[in-house]
Amino acid sequence: MANTDDLTRYCEEHREDALAELDAWLRIPSISADSAYQADVRRAAEHAAARMRAIGMTRAEVLETKGHPVVYGEWLGAPGKPTALVYGHYDVQPVDPLELWTSPPFDPQVRDGMLFARGAVDDKGQVVMHWKAFEAHLKTRGALPVNLKFLIEGEEEIGSPNFDDFVARNRDLLACDVVVISDTPVFAEDVPSLTIAVRGLVGWEIHVDGPSGDQHSGLFGGAIENPIMALACILAKLKDETGHIAVPGFYDDVRELTPHERREISELPYDERAEARRMGVPQLHGEHGYHPLERMWWRPTLDCNGIWGGYQGEGSKTIIPAKAGCKLTARLVPNQDPARVTRLIKEYILAIAPPGVRVHVDSFESGPAIVTSRDHPATRAAARAMEKAFGKPPVTIGMGGSIGPVGTFDRVLHLPQVLIGVGLPDDQTHAPNEKFTLSQFYGGIKTMAYLWDELAAGDARGAGIPPV
Amino acid sequence: MANTDDLTRYCEEHREDALAELDAWLRIPSISADSAYQADVRRAAEHAAARMRAIGMTRAEVLETKGHPVVYGEWLGAPGKPTALVYGHYDVQPVDPLELWTSPPFDPQVRDGMLFARGAVDDKGQVVMHWKAFEAHLKTRGALPVNLKFLIEGEEEIGSPNFDDFVARNRDLLACDVVVISDTPVFAEDVPSLTIAVRGLVGWEIHVDGPSGDQHSGLFGGAIENPIMALACILAKLKDETGHIAVPGFYDDVRELTPHERREISELPYDERAEARRMGVPQLHGEHGYHPLERMWWRPTLDCNGIWGGYQGEGSKTIIPAKAGCKLTARLVPNQDPARVTRLIKEYILAIAPPGVRVHVDSFESGPAIVTSRDHPATRAAARAMEKAFGKPPVTIGMGGSIGPVGTFDRVLHLPQVLIGVGLPDDQTHAPNEKFTLSQFYGGIKTMAYLWDELAAGDARGAGIPPV
Repeated sequence: MANTDDLTRYCEEHREDALAELDAWLRIPSISADSAYQADVRRAAEHAAARMRAIGMTRAEVLETKGHPVVYGEWLGAPGKPTALVYGHYDVQPVDPLELWTSPPFDPQVRDGMLFARGAVDDKGQVVMHWKAFEAHLKTRGALPVNLKFLIEGEEEIGSPNFDDFVARNRDLLACDVVVISDTPVFAEDVPSLTIAVRGLVGWEIHVDGPSGDQHSGLFGGAIENPIMALACILAKLKDETGHIAVPGFYDDVRELTPHERREISELPYDERAEARRMGVPQLHGEHGYHPLERMWWRPTLDCNGIWGGYQGEGSKTIIPAKAGCKLTARLVPNQDPARVTRLIKEYILAIAPPGVRVHVDSFESGPAIVTSRDHPATRAAARAMEKAFGKPPVTIGMGGSIGPVGTFDRVLHLPQVLIGVGLPDDQTHAPNEKFTLSQFYGGIKTMAYLWDELAAGDARGAGIPPV
Repeated sequence: MANTDDLTRYCEEHREDALAELDAWLRIPSISADSAYQADVRRAAEHAAARMRAIGMTRAEVLETKGHPVVYGEWLGAPGKPTALVYGHYDVQPVDPLELWTSPPFDPQVRDGMLFARGAVDDKGQVVMHWKAFEAHLKTRGALPVNLKFLIEGEEEIGSPNFDDFVARNRDLLACDVVVISDTPVFAEDVPSLTIAVRGLVGWEIHVDGPSGDQHSGLFGGAIENPIMALACILAKLKDETGHIAVPGFYDDVRELTPHERREISELPYDERAEARRMGVPQLHGEHGYHPLERMWWRPTLDCNGIWGGYQGEGSKTIIPAKAGCKLTARLVPNQDPARVTRLIKEYILAIAPPGVRVHVDSFESGPAIVTSRDHPATRAAARAMEKAFGKPPVTIGMGGSIGPVGTFDRVLHLPQVLIGVGLPDDQTHAPNEKFTLSQFYGGIKTMAYLWDELAAGDARGAGIPPV
């Protein structure tokens, strides 16, 4: 391993600077969802570009999109070495309900070793970790061991509506060997973690048409199929009694975890009953025979997100409704092909549709699971960097949901990605009293500083990642 | 049988009078649902009271309710003889869409042996049949063989909101031995019919509660039960694959029809494929092994009238919703106790509720099926009257839906009822171009005239109905 005493020392001696750097940025209320803050959003972008120039990036500027701008920065002084693109975002969530904040959301305050402010960890704090790590290299060695590009988005909290388009129009500018994203939490404090898989998503709408108009449930009840009952029967047949999805072929490409991977999961500090309490359900529920974490990270799901049909008002209206419908989504795991799953579900639903109604299925929105092998050189480099900073090797975890920009980089640029965030599960992102635990912040700065050395050096099992 | 030549002759010689009588009443647009017609509704009531006095009732007046008034009339000149209460209504449905009417709805016109006007058959025409039958008795014989009371409602088309209350407050005024209602259709032209059963109704709302708030279907999909999927599984388990309701004990009190009753049904002119086409469904559907008419008249049903849960808007929202719910109603057949059915359904739903959610069931609205035995003296009298008027014995049919006033008379006054209407299924009640086929109108007048003789005389199997 490279000698990193110089980086360690710099990071430790400049903790106060790092906190001040973050404090200044957090004071700009860059709420992307609220047009009243439009000028602040732009001010936060310009502040970032100015700071990135100040710490030594050779280029840093605000670039326009159809919505809020992105900030682009670069330092490309390591020819022949890999290039990493650091993604983050400078926009923040709204702050309502304001009265639940202990201190004002845009007046950062440190209490009990935690920094409280909107955006503290999501994601300004984690971007600042990268700035300080960059600065550490430049100040101690005059150069970085890899080339770096920074792409700091301003619309992540509103679903990145212009990000696909921006990335597609700037392929050359963004060309790199690996994307590094620090916008995810670790599994728990004292459990450093790398996210190596993000589930994919496909969706459908099922439409069940019965009689041409609502019918009197007295006059005709017993003579015609009820579209709601027909839809319920379809939904009930999607899974068997063990929670296993009953669609033939659905699991064909799903990899079973190895005993080693299962043991890793079972060793994580996870309390099923506490989780059930937290979510307000009598007990957790899912596919029999799998740990809840495995079900959330490594098993596909099929969930109904909305259903409608007939009369929803007060009192009663005794009809057999003309139609019913629902929205259905599946979370996909690595190797599942969204197009194939879409077809399988559609065929199955039509095959089990009762004869007294007409059923059609529309499919929408589709993206595969995204996975970085734990054996990818960039993942191994990230693991070494994290172990060095936090004192123990990170566990690898999955992410049940999708992350918009991760999908973009995969879909548009086909790049390997490292998801290396250091937030904690109780950081209250998107809620009042968002905080960043300072030990995670400082550990994160070191992690990112070590990361570039590790990425440049490669390890005993092979070279670093191949350049483009 | 009594000699009825006098009545027959009177009815046939006064067809034009009957048509003119109906025409005058139909010209008053007594639309109860539209407050713009409030004065017309009252005018129609006063017209009725005046006409009832004119034809010889000893009392006829407009009585107030909290809504539109009712018209009450009586002729009680047959002491010691049974008393019948004739129910009808003088209010009519709205006429929209007006442009689909061939002739104006309140300007009655005869075309092809049919009288076209709003209210022609529903129900002014069928009330006028009773007026003319009453008049025939009084004019030919100077008296009636039974005592008659008339109760002509003004709010039937808006659900009779004040009828229960009116009847309960006027028990003495309305005291009688049998209620006669002419507000139902026969099965088909040339198939004279008596309705001898009306199904009952009970209802529930099922509420399924999952997590305390909507959860991210990516982050938590696989770990918690989805309330919509849980509700679908409950609904799917309410019936087996043959359409039989799977709730234990549900059919305990349901009487199977006799082979004779089944044969009667199978001999009715009923075209399943034509019915399916008419309602716009690929095929009829219901409990296996039963004729559709038996399913609609003599078998209980369980139908979902409305369902909701999660996101119902455009596009997708990837949630596991906090809750889902639905409205459920059962149509009951004779002998089923609404309270027992309510309890059975509730217990069954709670027993099959998945463990990962909380389920509760509210029950609402409850009324038993109402049945008049085909062997009841009043039913037998009605059958003889109808056979004499239409040339063939009536079939007995059921009515799948509820009829508000029928429920009132059963619930409040506990009276036997005769449902003896002569409309046709294609009369377009509630739709543009409502009509009354004149042969049915004229046959109906004779039927009602013969009815009082038959009711007074009784038949070979026993006396008439016992007086109160």
